Amino acid sequence: MPHINLPEGVPGILGPMLFRPETAKPLNELAEILLRRSNSLSPGERELIATYVSSQNDCYFCQTVHGTVAAHHLHGNEALVIETKHSPESADISPKLKSLLAIAGKVQKGGKQVTSADIERARREGATDLEIHDTVLIAAAFCMYNRYVDGLATWAPQNAEMYRQQGARLATEGYISSTDGVSLETAHAV
Amino acid sequence: MPHINLPEGVPGILGPMLFRPETAKPLNELAEILLRRSNSLSPGERELIATYVSSQNDCYFCQTVHGTVAAHHLHGNEALVIETKHSPESADISPKLKSLLAIAGKVQKGGKQVTSADIERARREGATDLEIHDTVLIAAAFCMYNRYVDGLATWAPQNAEMYRQQGARLATEGYISSTDGVSLETAHAV
Repeated sequence: MPHINLPEGVPGILGPMLFRPETAKPLNELAEILLRRSNSLSPGERELIATYVSSQNDCYFCQTVHGTVAAHHLHGNEALVIETKHSPESADISPKLKSLLAIAGKVQKGGKQVTSADIERARREGATDLEIHDTVLIAAAFCMYNRYVDGLATWAPQNAEMYRQQGARLATEGYISSTDGVSLETAHAV
Repeated sequence: MPHINLPEGVPGILGPMLFRPETAKPLNELAEILLRRSNSLSPGERELIATYVSSQNDCYFCQTVHGTVAAHHLHGNEALVIETKHSPESADISPKLKSLLAIAGKVQKGGKQVTSADIERARREGATDLEIHDTVLIAAAFCMYNRYVDGLATWAPQNAEMYRQQGARLATEGYISSTDGVSLETAHAV
C-alpha cells in the first residue's frame, strides 16, 4: 500500500503524478527531452540507459516500463533489454553504448564515482560531449524517478502485458501526456 | 576540470545548464515549484531538506548554495543550517521537520529504505500527505541534481562570500531565471 493516499489502482509514477500535477509537468518534460527529442543517441539507446539505471536501483516499475519502451524501439527485442540490464559489457550493443552505460552505472552509485578514464573510454568509442552530458543526466534523473516511485511505495502490478501496452503507448505518444486519460476506470482496465 | 567542455569559470550546476538550456528549463521549474511555490512547509524548511540530502550525497556545491539559501530564509542563521546538516535529530528545528528529514535521509539511500514507521512518525508530528510527498520528491530530486553536478566534475569554488551572494539572489529571485545573466564575465566577477 502506498505511503500516502494516492489514486487507487494507478500504477507506479502515475499515482504521485496525478496526486501532484504541478510537479508532474517538469518531470514529464525532462523525460521527453532526454529520452525522445532529436539526439545523436537513438531513443532505444537512451531508454536502455534509463532501464539499466532503474535496474541498478532495483526499481521494478521503472525498469519494466522503460524496458518495454526500449524493446518497442528495438523492434521488440526484449531479450536484448534483459541482456543489457544483466551484463551490459557482453550484450549485443555498440562499444559506444557500453562505455556510456559504464558511466551511467557510476552515476547511479554517486556522481564522484565517474572517473576521467570512464570519460576517455567513451570518447575513444566516439561519444560526444552532448552524449556524455545526456548520459549523466539520464542516469541522475532516473535516480530521482526511481526514488520517487519507491520512496512512496507506489503500486507495481506484476502484469507483463500491461507494461507492454504502456511501453508501446509511451514509445509512440511520449511522456508529456503520459497521465492524460488515466483514471480509476482506465487503470483498472489494464 | 569538468569532464566535458563547459563554459569556463561558471560554478556548479550553472555550467551544464548553460551547456544544455533545453534540460535546464524543466530542472529549474522543478526546483522552483518544490522549493519556493506556496506550501505549508516554509521555503527555509524545504531548503534545509535540500541541503541535508546534498550533504548526505557529499555534493559540496549544492549543499553550500542551498545552505546559504536556507540561511537567508532563516534570518541569516548559518549555524542552524550546519547543525541540521550534521545532527538533524538534535538541531533546533520542529519535531515535524526532524521526522521529514529522517524520511529524506532514507530516500537518499534508496526509495525502498522508507518504512511505514518513518511515515507514521511524520504523521504523528502533524505532517500531511502533501508534505510527505514533497519531502520524498525534494530528496529524490537532489539525488539527481547532486549526481548531475558531481558526475560531470563541475567547478566548485571555495569562496564563502560567492555562495552567500548567490544564495541571497536565489532566495529572492528564484530558480527559473537562475542562469540569466551568467556569462564568463559575471562568473569571474563573483
